[in-house]
Amino acid sequence: MLRDEGVLQINPARLLDRLDELAQIGAIEGTAGCARLALTDEDAAGRDLVLAWMRDLGLDVTVDVIGNVVAVLPGTEASAAPVMTGSHIDTVRTGGRYDGNLGVLAGLEVLETVRSAGVTPRRPLAVAFFTNEEGARFAPDMLGSLVYAGGMPVEVALDIVGIDGSRVGEELERIGYRGPAPCPGLVPHAFVELHIEQGPVLEHEGVDIGIVTGVQGISWTELRIAGQSNHAGTTPMSLRHDPGYVAARIATFVRDLALELGHPHVGTVGKVDLHPNLVNVVAATATLTVDLRNTDEAVLQDAEARLAAFVAQLATAEGVTVTSRPLARFEPVEFDAGVVDLLEQLVEEHGHSHRRMPSGAGHDAQMMARLCPTGMLFVPSRGGISHNPAEHTDAEHLVAGTNLLLSAMLRLADGV
Amino acid sequence: MLRDEGVLQINPARLLDRLDELAQIGAIEGTAGCARLALTDEDAAGRDLVLAWMRDLGLDVTVDVIGNVVAVLPGTEASAAPVMTGSHIDTVRTGGRYDGNLGVLAGLEVLETVRSAGVTPRRPLAVAFFTNEEGARFAPDMLGSLVYAGGMPVEVALDIVGIDGSRVGEELERIGYRGPAPCPGLVPHAFVELHIEQGPVLEHEGVDIGIVTGVQGISWTELRIAGQSNHAGTTPMSLRHDPGYVAARIATFVRDLALELGHPHVGTVGKVDLHPNLVNVVAATATLTVDLRNTDEAVLQDAEARLAAFVAQLATAEGVTVTSRPLARFEPVEFDAGVVDLLEQLVEEHGHSHRRMPSGAGHDAQMMARLCPTGMLFVPSRGGISHNPAEHTDAEHLVAGTNLLLSAMLRLADGV
Repeated sequence: MLRDEGVLQINPARLLDRLDELAQIGAIEGTAGCARLALTDEDAAGRDLVLAWMRDLGLDVTVDVIGNVVAVLPGTEASAAPVMTGSHIDTVRTGGRYDGNLGVLAGLEVLETVRSAGVTPRRPLAVAFFTNEEGARFAPDMLGSLVYAGGMPVEVALDIVGIDGSRVGEELERIGYRGPAPCPGLVPHAFVELHIEQGPVLEHEGVDIGIVTGVQGISWTELRIAGQSNHAGTTPMSLRHDPGYVAARIATFVRDLALELGHPHVGTVGKVDLHPNLVNVVAATATLTVDLRNTDEAVLQDAEARLAAFVAQLATAEGVTVTSRPLARFEPVEFDAGVVDLLEQLVEEHGHSHRRMPSGAGHDAQMMARLCPTGMLFVPSRGGISHNPAEHTDAEHLVAGTNLLLSAMLRLADGV
Repeated sequence: MLRDEGVLQINPARLLDRLDELAQIGAIEGTAGCARLALTDEDAAGRDLVLAWMRDLGLDVTVDVIGNVVAVLPGTEASAAPVMTGSHIDTVRTGGRYDGNLGVLAGLEVLETVRSAGVTPRRPLAVAFFTNEEGARFAPDMLGSLVYAGGMPVEVALDIVGIDGSRVGEELERIGYRGPAPCPGLVPHAFVELHIEQGPVLEHEGVDIGIVTGVQGISWTELRIAGQSNHAGTTPMSLRHDPGYVAARIATFVRDLALELGHPHVGTVGKVDLHPNLVNVVAATATLTVDLRNTDEAVLQDAEARLAAFVAQLATAEGVTVTSRPLARFEPVEFDAGVVDLLEQLVEEHGHSHRRMPSGAGHDAQMMARLCPTGMLFVPSRGGISHNPAEHTDAEHLVAGTNLLLSAMLRLADGV
């Protein structure tokens, strides 16, 4: 051991200032939130800022072909696999300032703290931000880390078309983030991600830190319903083939099914588009998305099967055609028992209250878990609110989480 | 009688050519339909074309303050109230080429036929096109004829804000159709409108001509639902306040209610907008429209009351707030018995099969019925399809309807 990791502490003000400065980019007026959809001009500006911070620290920064950015602080063993942390800086359209950003800037803070202390751990330390974690512009979500982990060929990812008709590869070129580094990237020794909970459990139970045991399986499907557009006044109900009604009925089914399956199953229809979308016209088409999540792969598959059966039966009854397109599908992930145990031990040492919990949201860490032993730490979200400008985590929790990340990375970098 | 009206016949090719030429403006590529939302550049171009045709015929053309255009062919009694026909040339976004346009161009054809024949009826003949009949850009629909009939003050109408944030008065100025003529306008002796059925009844029964006895009452409401936007993965179902679900549940209620009330009640949710409208975000807000129609005012009021009660109960149960805004409300209209009888007699004389029927759609004629004895003629719509580029009426029916309009206007103009 080169130093007593217990005395090393991050600089809270530096962390908070960086979080605030990054949140100014794409800031949503009158709120604390921001909108930096992946690979937009706002995302590019955010990337430029974080990249500048990484370079200012003298880190070895690489940008890979899918736009993932990795910054490395060398260890004493130059050839050893690094201990990596990271997350994402893209947001949903009505995003908060901590989702993703905390994990990236906490990682940067860890590296700066270590470097400033003149400490050199055995293994290199790395912090990454991954492209398009949110999936709000391009499906699937967690795209950058998925490609990094070898879960999707680069050429397939570059060819993905977004909700606005743009293409991942072209947008990467446009904003200057189609880098030279190969992807899949280097395999870390271990990966630890710090993230806000984005749910109400920690706050509700008055617990400081969540030790994440795994991630719910995610199933995203787009359903496109084609019926018969017609005049809303002259078409008897019995002769209608109304995609708007079918979309609504599917949305209520998704909800009813979630209630029937019970916690922790969740089901959401968050996106609906009718065409032509006019008050007095029975819609010609409706497109909606269904988001299903469960920690149990078997139950998730059952939910998917029941949804598909319901949609097929409804389509027949209503005389519409429904085209189903999978947008994303990830099985539930279990994090590495050794890393989970280590994180729990460190939280004990730091004196914080804690609980083990699954994550309801998808995270880059679940992709990295394919490559190396991986774990995650959660800090509380006020009111459980996330994907919303009102998203908030108290500064004391941001700092406590980052100090835990520091301890975890050093322990993993100096361990065997 | 100055001539035998039985021998006067419209020029079919001239009518069909004009319908085709007008349909080229705002044409939807690859279809026979067109998109000329009220007071857009496309509507302006359509207006310019029809106005030019009116002026070419030497008609006395006036544009009133709400953009209604009236063209008059003088009668032998200069001061007599005219017999008027007309309709509209604005369309929905995915409109057909006959809805409204037929009534205007058939009227023009009638006036040209009369003038070309050297015939001068006792009363003047007039053809009008009214502003924003569809209501697809500005609510309420039938705006121009409503104001013409004194049903809404001009200043209120000019101040209406459309779905794109534009204002009626400013858009009229912009396209040059805020005219000098006063509105309400002159009171006709009688008003007869020719229109496509926009429903399946005539075709289904193999009947040539519908004699319209009245128009269903129309109730349009916009409902804006505000809930709690949140992460679709981390928010347990029990803690959600999801406007997307509430909107879907209202849409299925509207359908269930229509089935329960039975024919001729119809209910439609044709417009739904979620915000932020993303796959993995529980929506913050949802806005939807509800279109309810019935020939019986008491049943329509009952439907409105039951919808309002359902929405209030649902809002409480789901912890969302719902704001209701009336977009349009018209009581059922009964057409003048004398005009209806006359039209039926003429259809008999012309040797066409016919039936009496209510209109499921709103029409300018229902506004004119407030001013003078009014009636309407329907010609069949193939497949009952309307508000759709596939809208179609056979040429023989277009011609038969226009010849009937010619007879009706001459009979009314020369009668006492």
